[in-house]
Amino acid sequence: MELLQKNRCFDGEQRIYRFNSQTLKGDSRFAVYLSPQALEGEACPALFYLAGLTCTEETFAIKAHAQGMAAQLGLILIMPDTSPRGDYVAQGDHWDIGQGAGFYINATQAPWAEHYQMESFIVDELYELVLQQFPVQQNRVGIFGHSMGGHGALTLAFKYPDKFKSVSAFAPICAPTQCPWGEKAFSTYLGNDQALWAQHDAVALVGEKGALFNEILIDQGLDDQFYSQLNPALFQQVCVQVGQTLTLREHAGYDHGYYFIQSFMDDHLQFHAVQLES
Amino acid sequence: MELLQKNRCFDGEQRIYRFNSQTLKGDSRFAVYLSPQALEGEACPALFYLAGLTCTEETFAIKAHAQGMAAQLGLILIMPDTSPRGDYVAQGDHWDIGQGAGFYINATQAPWAEHYQMESFIVDELYELVLQQFPVQQNRVGIFGHSMGGHGALTLAFKYPDKFKSVSAFAPICAPTQCPWGEKAFSTYLGNDQALWAQHDAVALVGEKGALFNEILIDQGLDDQFYSQLNPALFQQVCVQVGQTLTLREHAGYDHGYYFIQSFMDDHLQFHAVQLES
Repeated sequence: MELLQKNRCFDGEQRIYRFNSQTLKGDSRFAVYLSPQALEGEACPALFYLAGLTCTEETFAIKAHAQGMAAQLGLILIMPDTSPRGDYVAQGDHWDIGQGAGFYINATQAPWAEHYQMESFIVDELYELVLQQFPVQQNRVGIFGHSMGGHGALTLAFKYPDKFKSVSAFAPICAPTQCPWGEKAFSTYLGNDQALWAQHDAVALVGEKGALFNEILIDQGLDDQFYSQLNPALFQQVCVQVGQTLTLREHAGYDHGYYFIQSFMDDHLQFHAVQLES
Repeated sequence: MELLQKNRCFDGEQRIYRFNSQTLKGDSRFAVYLSPQALEGEACPALFYLAGLTCTEETFAIKAHAQGMAAQLGLILIMPDTSPRGDYVAQGDHWDIGQGAGFYINATQAPWAEHYQMESFIVDELYELVLQQFPVQQNRVGIFGHSMGGHGALTLAFKYPDKFKSVSAFAPICAPTQCPWGEKAFSTYLGNDQALWAQHDAVALVGEKGALFNEILIDQGLDDQFYSQLNPALFQQVCVQVGQTLTLREHAGYDHGYYFIQSFMDDHLQFHAVQLES
């Protein structure tokens, strides 16, 4: 694990690392924010943040304005890249597929299966690495994300509730089996068997697994230019059906970008801090 | 004035405009953050933020994490570009001169003088435009900046105390006549007459003008990779000599970048809000 960059920030440290991933079969970068408490070696709760289409491990660190509140709450933030990267990694035909668009699933189809193993990368390899390398309280790890990464956070939380004790999302793709982004990604990475797709669809997963969390927090802008891809109403519906408490906040005037995300970032960090205490 | 982008942010709006500048003889962009109060048409105090070398009008908006506190305090933030831009504008040989490096002065030397008129642009043309277009309280306008923009903020405040009632800076170039960045910029833009240079040097200006502000706030990282270009001690010295109150805070471990700036941003906004009330 190689430290590429570190910057003091709110008395903690913002860092970028590179390491050779066995799961992705190549180098991968991730960013981490260590709160002042973590920097002193104190065991802290941690949050994985999964970013959206086209983003990298640095997007959240620069644009989300999370470090100030993370420092106050004593949180460690883990920010993986959104896909495998490199000349040897298959490229997509557009920004919504391939590099920068891993969708947090394990591809089964050629040529993608060779490197696109983002689900195992996050929940096994990176998760273990983070527990080894940073002073993380093992039973206090949460996950959140935005858009494609909101889909990732919701699905990974419901698939691995033993690993993630809290979950929230900004403008998540709630039902990827029912929107163009998801249909393209799932048919590309998983092939045409739609029974497989459902295993990676938050609405389907909650319907199958039932209520697993005390509460889920979702923020959604009502001027979101990608609203038709997101289907928050379907997610709300299935949460009601299974008795999963959901706080879905819809915000007039807000769009899909990081100016929206930063506006509600403190709320999400405080939400996770409370959930991870219980 | 053409609105290029707007994003709801902390119930205010982050915007980018383009307009044809008579001073710069070409199109120029600037960003503005309108607090919720300003968006409702309420007259608000305003701060000009001058960015550093290589930055654009968007850098501060994305990286400085200022909007949350600006919304709380009811501030309008004005973020100009750092130089004229365009194919028809003279280019420099390196990132420390030419486009992205206007140094907030009016060039007198060819080929720079044609477009590089950043001082007049900020204090006359953009200043007037902002007063016309946004609900700014005319007697409550402050200025701050970073690095080259910290130099800009300090010098423009001491040259135009009737226009700027408060001033602060992050890691400013305090004595450009005595550091390589400044020597290169001033000899390029102004020629070799060093008597002219002194008119644009914060240390020299404060020595000449004396104490003009209730207080000046400067934050400086002690791990700043450009520390030798900045000379905060010279600025502190001249402030003591003339009786100008200065709060110079030196921070162990912090470098020159926006992770440093964001860590102390709220303090600067609160400082200006207090100074502009008096």
